[in-house]
Amino acid sequence: AEDLKKREDAKSLDPYSSDPERHPVLHVKCKKPFNAEPPPEILTDSYITPRVLFFKRNHLPVPQVDPASYRLNVEGLPGGALSLSLEDLKTRFPKHTITATLQCAGNRRSDMNKVKQVNGLNWGISAIGNAKWSGVRLRDVLLASGFGPELAKWARHVHFEGLDKDVTGTAYGTSIPINKAISEEGDVLLAYEMNGEDIPSDHGFPVRVVVPGVVGARNVKWLGRIVISTEESSSHWQQHDYKGFSPGTDWKNVDPKSAPAIQELPVQSAITVPADGAVIDRSDETLTVKGYAWSGGGREVVRVDVSLDGGKTWQVAQLRSGDEGQPAEPSPPPGQAWAWKLWELTAPLPPEAEELEIICKAVDNSYNVQPDTVLPIWNLRGLLSNAWHRVKVKVTED
Amino acid sequence: AEDLKKREDAKSLDPYSSDPERHPVLHVKCKKPFNAEPPPEILTDSYITPRVLFFKRNHLPVPQVDPASYRLNVEGLPGGALSLSLEDLKTRFPKHTITATLQCAGNRRSDMNKVKQVNGLNWGISAIGNAKWSGVRLRDVLLASGFGPELAKWARHVHFEGLDKDVTGTAYGTSIPINKAISEEGDVLLAYEMNGEDIPSDHGFPVRVVVPGVVGARNVKWLGRIVISTEESSSHWQQHDYKGFSPGTDWKNVDPKSAPAIQELPVQSAITVPADGAVIDRSDETLTVKGYAWSGGGREVVRVDVSLDGGKTWQVAQLRSGDEGQPAEPSPPPGQAWAWKLWELTAPLPPEAEELEIICKAVDNSYNVQPDTVLPIWNLRGLLSNAWHRVKVKVTED
Repeated sequence: AEDLKKREDAKSLDPYSSDPERHPVLHVKCKKPFNAEPPPEILTDSYITPRVLFFKRNHLPVPQVDPASYRLNVEGLPGGALSLSLEDLKTRFPKHTITATLQCAGNRRSDMNKVKQVNGLNWGISAIGNAKWSGVRLRDVLLASGFGPELAKWARHVHFEGLDKDVTGTAYGTSIPINKAISEEGDVLLAYEMNGEDIPSDHGFPVRVVVPGVVGARNVKWLGRIVISTEESSSHWQQHDYKGFSPGTDWKNVDPKSAPAIQELPVQSAITVPADGAVIDRSDETLTVKGYAWSGGGREVVRVDVSLDGGKTWQVAQLRSGDEGQPAEPSPPPGQAWAWKLWELTAPLPPEAEELEIICKAVDNSYNVQPDTVLPIWNLRGLLSNAWHRVKVKVTED
Repeated sequence: AEDLKKREDAKSLDPYSSDPERHPVLHVKCKKPFNAEPPPEILTDSYITPRVLFFKRNHLPVPQVDPASYRLNVEGLPGGALSLSLEDLKTRFPKHTITATLQCAGNRRSDMNKVKQVNGLNWGISAIGNAKWSGVRLRDVLLASGFGPELAKWARHVHFEGLDKDVTGTAYGTSIPINKAISEEGDVLLAYEMNGEDIPSDHGFPVRVVVPGVVGARNVKWLGRIVISTEESSSHWQQHDYKGFSPGTDWKNVDPKSAPAIQELPVQSAITVPADGAVIDRSDETLTVKGYAWSGGGREVVRVDVSLDGGKTWQVAQLRSGDEGQPAEPSPPPGQAWAWKLWELTAPLPPEAEELEIICKAVDNSYNVQPDTVLPIWNLRGLLSNAWHRVKVKVTED
């Protein structure tokens, strides 16, 4: 009882005191709220990112949720509000599993910071991960709860609110367009498992929404409330943060209303091996480059080009949808490619070069490509950083 | 009768002899088959491109189709083949109208040719146009003809075959994924009107398929046959042409199977005014730049950035979804932004500069952007040319 009291006291002083333990290998960007990413060189060791290594992007303290008393409230439906227990979700709706990559809007922000200071956590290239998410389809819950043609006439957005709250009691909240939530191909899940086990508390225990193909920020963790609405969420995170602006826009002239909230993300790729600054032995003769590639909106990555000479010539990397030597995941239907691809290129070391600039760029099945350079997509919040990824390595004689 | 005989004789010698008259203002890229685009400076004079000015991209001679005997055959349905007359289409299904931009996969190929020779017609920036298309939804025809859950289990593609044929009797043909054809939001039309009048013979009279958000090549004209299939079309145009490859791929090492057939197109924009090489009078003090912007897959263009100094600084252009001074078209639902936006920027002339490099680049609502330069997206067929568009103008003293 005394221990409990001490913990309560500590918590009232520090709302982060009951945050869970984290894996020591993570690169911590911010402790409170906790934000961390795995080291790039291990990110692509496995096609499915282990839960402990999956990047953690919390906006607020991790809420302690008792699964027995947990309730998910669904509002805006014709029959009035609905309250679902975890048991309800698990027993009343079919279980569905998808493999989906989540990426923070700020992934690779450090590349923007290098060219011109931005505002936000200095993420490297690992604020992205790929997991198997299991749960119930939001579509199934909404249709079973009275969503029909009448509602479809006026409903335009679905709001998600977390159980994580700031000191004023404001919960993390955001929204997605209704068509993503209700479409058969949208695959939006109320997920209660990550990689076959309970979702860890850092990732939204007991229930998070997984909106595949859409920016991490809309994949609300510790989901407490769903609201069907004519309007977008009025939250800070929907209306002010997580929007993209022109490189000419600064904090003096920015008009948040001028830009849409980020939903689908653009095509992305990065080099995880070798690391920037690595030293290569010329006697190796060949060089192996590895990385990941992904695109938003369910658009499948169809090609990754790799250059070993700063972009003068390009070679096509091999793509993988599974672990090396393991069977690949089955090909998804068009528009439902939610998972990243890992890629690899082994090529002869260019003769005589003492330094190599290695570059990767991906192409998705809409044939969108990554832009060449960072400055023309620079934006004051350092979001959507998807220019070609470049690493420099030195080649030494034995 | 003698006249008729002469015409028949001429036709047997020249299958293009019955091609229609064309507007003399068009820039002709190829006469037989006829391929032409309007002058860029008039392309953005109207939000809806007049039918006579709309780019014409024919693969074969224009077939003469008698609307009274016209039949559209639909195959692969459970009840066997279906044969629909023009009257059937017009009376048995609801009429639906969409405003949709069509773009040739080769639009802006000339920009690729400038950096390295490619294979194909040397299109400028005007192999794109925006029209109002009216007709019946392919979805409605398929559902009314027996497409249901049983067919959905195995059907993966819908083939389209034109009535235009080469000398061996092979018709132009191609296919799209079934989900685009059958989805409520796909808006695929069997169109019999263009801008409120019969479709002109150069654009597919009496019926063409309009697959909004998808490359022009899949919008088959003079539509004669629709086939539901497990496989993609085996045609040359599906399997060998209209695919994108790495800049390192040449005619010796190209493997057509390695790339998917182009369907959705990437984000695009171009400057129509001023023209490249124009001379600006410094006493004008301000400069007005105009152009178009569009993206495939129903992704709405949300911003166009314009630079007057070769990409050092950027200003945001004003977007329009209608003619100047006229009410804009209503905002489309997410994922159904099929029409281009016209844009305009009026800005002070940079002082002292004697030459300006003007650049535009667009951003769509997946926040995909255009790549900076041409060479890294160069491909042997010169397709998908969507790097930043650049024009140079001279500034002279009065």
